[in-house]
Amino acid sequence: MTQQINQETAGVAQWHSLGQQLRVDSIRSSSGAGSGHPTSSMSAADLLAVLMGKYLRYDFDEPENPNNDHLIFSKGHASPLLYSVYKAAGAISDEELLTFRKFHSRLQGHPTPQIPWVDVATGSLGQGLPIGVGVALAGKYLDKLPYHVWVLCGDSEMAEGSMWEAFQHASYYKLGNLTAILDMNRLGQTRETMNGWHGDRYAARAEAFGWNAIQIDGHAPDEIDGAYAEALEETDRPTLIVARTKKGRGVSFLEDVDGMHGKPVPGDDVQKALDELGDHDDLLVNVRKPDPGQGEDFTPGLTGELELPTWEVGDEEATRGAYGATLKALGGAREDVVALDGEVSNSTKSEEFAEEYPDRYFEMFIAEQQMVSAAVGMSVRHRVPFASSFAAFLSRAYDFIRMAAISRANIRLSGSHAGVSIGEDGPSQMALEDLAMMRAVHGSTVLQPCDANQTARLVAEMADKDGIVYLRTLRPKTPVIYDASEGFLIGGSKTVRSSDEDAVTVVASGITLHEATKAADELQESGIAVRVIDAYSIKPIDGDTIRDAARATGGKVVVVEDHWPEGGLGEAVLSSLSGRLDDLHFEHLAVEIMPGSGSSAELMDAAGISANHIVDAARKLANG
Amino acid sequence: MTQQINQETAGVAQWHSLGQQLRVDSIRSSSGAGSGHPTSSMSAADLLAVLMGKYLRYDFDEPENPNNDHLIFSKGHASPLLYSVYKAAGAISDEELLTFRKFHSRLQGHPTPQIPWVDVATGSLGQGLPIGVGVALAGKYLDKLPYHVWVLCGDSEMAEGSMWEAFQHASYYKLGNLTAILDMNRLGQTRETMNGWHGDRYAARAEAFGWNAIQIDGHAPDEIDGAYAEALEETDRPTLIVARTKKGRGVSFLEDVDGMHGKPVPGDDVQKALDELGDHDDLLVNVRKPDPGQGEDFTPGLTGELELPTWEVGDEEATRGAYGATLKALGGAREDVVALDGEVSNSTKSEEFAEEYPDRYFEMFIAEQQMVSAAVGMSVRHRVPFASSFAAFLSRAYDFIRMAAISRANIRLSGSHAGVSIGEDGPSQMALEDLAMMRAVHGSTVLQPCDANQTARLVAEMADKDGIVYLRTLRPKTPVIYDASEGFLIGGSKTVRSSDEDAVTVVASGITLHEATKAADELQESGIAVRVIDAYSIKPIDGDTIRDAARATGGKVVVVEDHWPEGGLGEAVLSSLSGRLDDLHFEHLAVEIMPGSGSSAELMDAAGISANHIVDAARKLANG
Repeated sequence: MTQQINQETAGVAQWHSLGQQLRVDSIRSSSGAGSGHPTSSMSAADLLAVLMGKYLRYDFDEPENPNNDHLIFSKGHASPLLYSVYKAAGAISDEELLTFRKFHSRLQGHPTPQIPWVDVATGSLGQGLPIGVGVALAGKYLDKLPYHVWVLCGDSEMAEGSMWEAFQHASYYKLGNLTAILDMNRLGQTRETMNGWHGDRYAARAEAFGWNAIQIDGHAPDEIDGAYAEALEETDRPTLIVARTKKGRGVSFLEDVDGMHGKPVPGDDVQKALDELGDHDDLLVNVRKPDPGQGEDFTPGLTGELELPTWEVGDEEATRGAYGATLKALGGAREDVVALDGEVSNSTKSEEFAEEYPDRYFEMFIAEQQMVSAAVGMSVRHRVPFASSFAAFLSRAYDFIRMAAISRANIRLSGSHAGVSIGEDGPSQMALEDLAMMRAVHGSTVLQPCDANQTARLVAEMADKDGIVYLRTLRPKTPVIYDASEGFLIGGSKTVRSSDEDAVTVVASGITLHEATKAADELQESGIAVRVIDAYSIKPIDGDTIRDAARATGGKVVVVEDHWPEGGLGEAVLSSLSGRLDDLHFEHLAVEIMPGSGSSAELMDAAGISANHIVDAARKLANG
Repeated sequence: MTQQINQETAGVAQWHSLGQQLRVDSIRSSSGAGSGHPTSSMSAADLLAVLMGKYLRYDFDEPENPNNDHLIFSKGHASPLLYSVYKAAGAISDEELLTFRKFHSRLQGHPTPQIPWVDVATGSLGQGLPIGVGVALAGKYLDKLPYHVWVLCGDSEMAEGSMWEAFQHASYYKLGNLTAILDMNRLGQTRETMNGWHGDRYAARAEAFGWNAIQIDGHAPDEIDGAYAEALEETDRPTLIVARTKKGRGVSFLEDVDGMHGKPVPGDDVQKALDELGDHDDLLVNVRKPDPGQGEDFTPGLTGELELPTWEVGDEEATRGAYGATLKALGGAREDVVALDGEVSNSTKSEEFAEEYPDRYFEMFIAEQQMVSAAVGMSVRHRVPFASSFAAFLSRAYDFIRMAAISRANIRLSGSHAGVSIGEDGPSQMALEDLAMMRAVHGSTVLQPCDANQTARLVAEMADKDGIVYLRTLRPKTPVIYDASEGFLIGGSKTVRSSDEDAVTVVASGITLHEATKAADELQESGIAVRVIDAYSIKPIDGDTIRDAARATGGKVVVVEDHWPEGGLGEAVLSSLSGRLDDLHFEHLAVEIMPGSGSSAELMDAAGISANHIVDAARKLANG
């Protein structure tokens, strides 16, 4: 017989019963699946019982209600608890709860936004809190709505550096609308955490980073109640609630016992466990919807005319410069575009947007993991985030980019200073693996413009492309070769040199496109006609055009890229040709030696990707 | 006329002059190059003057002296200062100093171990300190030598989460032999840092993380002297020296001036700057060699007989289990092998080594960036580090892996739980991009065994392979198909099904190898002979065998991998075939949909990479 819990009247007795029910359901779901993390769920049950039993303001019928609170399980493996919360809220049935981890169930091993009330996928630790920072930034500075961001964290994940990026940024940005609930259950996967139950250490660290820290008994509902109330009073400081808990709490043979991480309660022991927890399985919590509030404070999509910056053919401009100018133009035509940067905005040129629209620019300092997380968080709040840094430093955030794909996040990333063409700074600053890295992201789009007008068009195209879109920009200036009126579509290419006598096809992108045209012009003088394709869309790649060109040139194809040989443009071309082309004669020019310092021209030549190398390769194929 | 500075007698006056010389040379080198970071170098000049002028114990003639201190510039862009230090130590000439950033110069824009006195490449911020933690771990627990690890840090990079992983681990592991010198010059690249000159904030954070923190005027040599002396007295606590400094210190038009980051002093202003700094350019510091000490406490290479674990054909064992057993065997035969893990040792099975050789196992908790950094640091001290976590979580450390290649580090990485075959945990725990990620690392080796005996052989091969070696292991048990006596070489492959009538070649690896043999056996029954190649070495790949097989089967090749389509086995095969094979008919089976939860078999089938899908693809080619 269902018993209703109302947030306005609930007290310790109700929260205790609810906590027990959440434990019961965490065990039932994981034991039913034969896998999962019940003990990690049980330690946080009281924390969630009080949260949903009094404080959480959420409309389960309207997950897109902009006034909803946000609940993020940074400790994503406590998914049984999260799903038990959804059941207790009446959002899912008990029957669905028991589909946990089954094939085709939306209740996956770790939460994903396949479930409407889940903002982002978690399961890789240390990500939920920095993403929560992004949502809270949106709440405080963009939406200007009073929703609260609640993030359940594990103590093991406090070892992840990204958590401390979140700590730093949340206090710097005065996120009083953010509360991190630390389920300090002492036990990690294989052993005790570095800090065990020394809650004072976590509290001291949080305070040193500018947070409000509250230490409580995580199984005392009255203390939890007091902590949440105190957290909600903060306007300019985020709160860390350090809750001393026991893993497997509530069942004697599980509670604070080593070696129980990630183990479902064996079938034979389930009833014993449930008996200890008491007969709770039919409580329903009437989670209050948020107050109507002001609604969203922005209009998505174009709100003004987009006037792209333009350049004259023959001008010289770096594609990173064009990125900056276009981002600014986009910011003027769209209220939903926001920009983030990793303290290199005068290098990536996002500074142009920052100067013009400071209220929509977020300096993320040297913290790329937090930057990408914040972009994901802002996309949860329907902004169109453009995040930039040196392409090489986006690799710092690869696990976050990987998880963003599982989150189905729509984020735009721009990486500048690609390749050896950056020159004297040397290899630490050069991205030579970023095309491989970004191609291997599910559903991603990978673009590399070669001139300023093309960049402008592609940046505009990026804005509404779903998923993770990556734009690779260059440090040096390149000649403008495309008229400002020319259009460029994602998935397209441009053939910039072509004739009926073409003997070889050269596929290039970015800086190498200019080397390729130089080479083609030189070869033309010695009577060899070369087709040059600007593959500015590396993923998806314009396979049709490349195949047609390859066929027209007898299968003779040179691909040249400022990137390692693996996983980049060359292999993208091969994948597009494979199985559809007889008789391929392929030359791949890529960076194979570790570069040092030097001028752009010296390094490109040493890497074998400059015009004269393209000439040699094309000649070899043409004559061979 | 050269003036000698002796560490035993130097005092404030000498250190001041030396600091000025380091500033002079930082300007001369970067202005000569037309690029570089003089102001970032000038702020730390007094810190280095006192360090080299009294405390640093280093034999520049014998960089491999195990008793040498270690000096790491975590703020790698202050390379002009580092090179000026080498000149002042007499290690390089003034002439060489002025080759800074030139093509072919070993004095690159950011330091690399091309220079004998540089341990590791820096330039991507937030890495030098965690690597220093690795070196200090080696010093305290492996070498048991008294050398000190000095790490120069910038204040901008304190925003990187990886720094806080280092803070946590250094105190947990009681690294009194580590000192972080924070050059708190207030100004980042584009603006003031989040904490400006609030040295108390950095100190409070360091103390909250268990460090000793000392705040000083970074331009007062006597205070610097006192701080270094105090740091050296610590036995069990690392020290953070928070030095208040001014960017561009010493030159009035540069000192603490916005907008001067990464800008060389323009030619016209160089003399003005040098005039302000005074006429210093001929000081030579007699940096004392370290005391002889005990020498290295281990023997590199095999010290005992390596008895690999073996399995019987037909047994079932997970390749991750074989990794664990072999690592233990390796640990027994080699004193130089050490293991590190990211708090998942009962999943990766590194726990077997940990139980047997606890003195050589380092638990790195949930901090993959620190784990990889520590491996790099231990390789600096000539250990053979095997670091493991879930393959998906190694993506957290991608920027560190990238930089490790520039560092020419020899590290072995093992990533478990690869692909959809892990089952119910779902996509957050699955590595589906790791082959692309690791192939695109300069000089890397990428291996994926399919059975336990093969794993054992490959783990043994990994130990001395130079560079970054990656082993991908599986969660589920797989059948043992290779006899324990069989050998496997890096760069090789095994043809497991072959006949003179082969109509199609199937190339597989890891879990898909077993699907491929199932498929081949099924196809055999319907009269289609299929050649199956186990490409356990994905990089370098056995192109010869694959090409021969492709030719023998009329160019009909199926590649099947538990990985996204981009950058993995399929593209590695294409790259090995391209340009050398006419008439390729290629089918690529890879994971193209985002997986959910489910059993291993359900997920592999839904992903299109199970036996029946291989059958379909092979049949299509055979009949086509």
